[in-house]
Amino acid sequence: MSLFLSVVPVSEAIEVVRRTAPLPGCEDIPLKDALHRALAGDVCADSDIPGFDRSTVDGYAVAAADTTGASEAIPAMLPCRGRVGMGSRDAGSISPGACKYVPTGGALPRGADAVVMIEHAEQIGDDVLVHRPVAPGENVVSRGEDFRAGEVVLERGRVLSPRDIGVAAAVGAGRVSVATVPRIGIISTGNEVVPVAATPGPGEVRDANSHLAGAFVTERGCRPVYFGIVRDERAALEKAISSALDTCDVVLVSGGSSKDERDNTAAVIADLGKVLVHGIALAPGKPTIIGTARGKPIIGLPGHPASAFVVLVAIVDHLLAAMLGTTISRRTLSARLRQNIPSTRGREDYVRVSVRDGEAVPVFGKSGLLNTLVQSDGVVRVPASSEGFEVGEEVEVILW
Amino acid sequence: MSLFLSVVPVSEAIEVVRRTAPLPGCEDIPLKDALHRALAGDVCADSDIPGFDRSTVDGYAVAAADTTGASEAIPAMLPCRGRVGMGSRDAGSISPGACKYVPTGGALPRGADAVVMIEHAEQIGDDVLVHRPVAPGENVVSRGEDFRAGEVVLERGRVLSPRDIGVAAAVGAGRVSVATVPRIGIISTGNEVVPVAATPGPGEVRDANSHLAGAFVTERGCRPVYFGIVRDERAALEKAISSALDTCDVVLVSGGSSKDERDNTAAVIADLGKVLVHGIALAPGKPTIIGTARGKPIIGLPGHPASAFVVLVAIVDHLLAAMLGTTISRRTLSARLRQNIPSTRGREDYVRVSVRDGEAVPVFGKSGLLNTLVQSDGVVRVPASSEGFEVGEEVEVILW
Repeated sequence: MSLFLSVVPVSEAIEVVRRTAPLPGCEDIPLKDALHRALAGDVCADSDIPGFDRSTVDGYAVAAADTTGASEAIPAMLPCRGRVGMGSRDAGSISPGACKYVPTGGALPRGADAVVMIEHAEQIGDDVLVHRPVAPGENVVSRGEDFRAGEVVLERGRVLSPRDIGVAAAVGAGRVSVATVPRIGIISTGNEVVPVAATPGPGEVRDANSHLAGAFVTERGCRPVYFGIVRDERAALEKAISSALDTCDVVLVSGGSSKDERDNTAAVIADLGKVLVHGIALAPGKPTIIGTARGKPIIGLPGHPASAFVVLVAIVDHLLAAMLGTTISRRTLSARLRQNIPSTRGREDYVRVSVRDGEAVPVFGKSGLLNTLVQSDGVVRVPASSEGFEVGEEVEVILW
Repeated sequence: MSLFLSVVPVSEAIEVVRRTAPLPGCEDIPLKDALHRALAGDVCADSDIPGFDRSTVDGYAVAAADTTGASEAIPAMLPCRGRVGMGSRDAGSISPGACKYVPTGGALPRGADAVVMIEHAEQIGDDVLVHRPVAPGENVVSRGEDFRAGEVVLERGRVLSPRDIGVAAAVGAGRVSVATVPRIGIISTGNEVVPVAATPGPGEVRDANSHLAGAFVTERGCRPVYFGIVRDERAALEKAISSALDTCDVVLVSGGSSKDERDNTAAVIADLGKVLVHGIALAPGKPTIIGTARGKPIIGLPGHPASAFVVLVAIVDHLLAAMLGTTISRRTLSARLRQNIPSTRGREDYVRVSVRDGEAVPVFGKSGLLNTLVQSDGVVRVPASSEGFEVGEEVEVILW
């Protein structure tokens, strides 16, 4: 087989990684630990929420009909039959023409169908003067109005936000079924790569990619497993990938900026399994490799961190989402371009931009500068079918 | 003293919580563990990055002057003096008129000041034919061009993203100084509140707020410490708050929808320390209490989760940011309103909206419905000075 497949469009590369993604496993965990985890099953309401007709104000529970025509001038006068206690399991009842004090969140007594706010009533001795009529249901949340028993509250695949956690608690989901955390093996290759703690000599650079990829997959809900720096030798790389495959669900091989190094990585993947993509119509990020071995995806990332990051965002994100059974939710904003973005038809360009006052300013600069990563707020994607965007055009910025 | 201060504007409430925020502590941690942590000091480049003149392409290192006038028809012919190895500590040198193969990321040999891409050259035996001229510096990143030794790469207060982690690795920050993780004590009050695992009887609701607040502070980089559900009795509440103050930096008391309960919470805070704010011109979220005891802030959140969440976003977020020595970075987008949002001058309204195809659709519904939390994508803030927004207006949505 040839290792040197032709360059494929981004959409096809995404297809390939999704197809190679191992199916998500699932596990039951306490809700308190489930922030940012992906649901593996729907969360349903275990009962009607609320479980009773509940007042949304401090006031007097009444039969709405008893307040018809009430006004400041001619208030309705209703004898008050005590108070509903918070959390009291029996709110009691009122007879027609009477009322009962109910606090916010308290249950309506039987016979009541609305609540008059205290601001619109006046208690005089055992009687309450009501100054305004209320309609049936006013200031009340009815039993099951929020969620019906059995109703799906949060759908499978949803990545749980703090709001979701709160709502899941309300419907009784003290434990939730979530996708297991994929283990992502991370290998850095390159004879020029030294550990972060080392002082690089001439010709050497520090291992930024392991950290970058590790932090990226962590943010996406995966666990990085670091396999260190491997020299550009087939035997060493094969051993490292093989041992990563033993314990991980995916292997990211980062590094290999030069053609020789990339070919080396591709050859090792071909030895262990199969190279599916070698080159993507993506800039930066063209020299990306997608392969598979032992039923697990292996991705060869470009050597330069700025390029590697674009591939993480444009391609690997889809792989991780598929493994978690979720979809990518990207934060985007639209902004007006302050400068032209020229592009070449036939490849997808990811142009870093900073966003200031609603304007997107392209952060140009030589490929291979790290500072563009910290100076940019996101990227503008120029589709393969486009020759770029012009100054003043409204573009979508993918925030990263 | 009176417990019943007048309602204060949101801006003043934010001022107060920032003023009461304990100063951030700091600790040194490995960079690999620093994702989403707030920097307590600047990260500076420990040396010039890159540390050498580096090729950004696979090609031939040359003295640019030797390629002047080169073309397809009349190429420059330069004898090739071997290859620069990746990571080789000495790239050697070339004499005038010669060239040397250099891989992407490799160091330029002395005597070279540019690189001709292999695509624009042809090697024939020991000679290389160059078909295009290069300018000095072309396809080269110079020593220190990315970052100069000592330059600030990431500023104190920055919350570290995956990109930041990658860049910090590149400049040698194997360990970073970050703000210590604030411990946030979380107490739920209310006789009606039962644990999530319990089946609520009539009049009872589950403790959604502890989960909601815990997940919120976790997402903001803090550690929740749960003190469970406390009945609405002064002695019990005082004991719980006091023991939370023993081990935590902040105490959030959630619950107290009714006036009686709120007064209870305020009275306990007043006994332990001081009530600074009792009521904010914010809807929902008016019945919020801000106090302090033993030099630590105590926040009384509204009882209903949907209101509590707005207070977390509008007020508590500022407190946590101050404690971490950082600023709030909100993801926002602008959208056109599909419906009017009426509001009352004099209070700040947070109106939940869902966003579909660039349009913001207000999620109205009775205060106190949880489902509005999961159906909304964010909130539109209507300032106290405004009477609302009209259909078709462009509004800023704070995504949550």
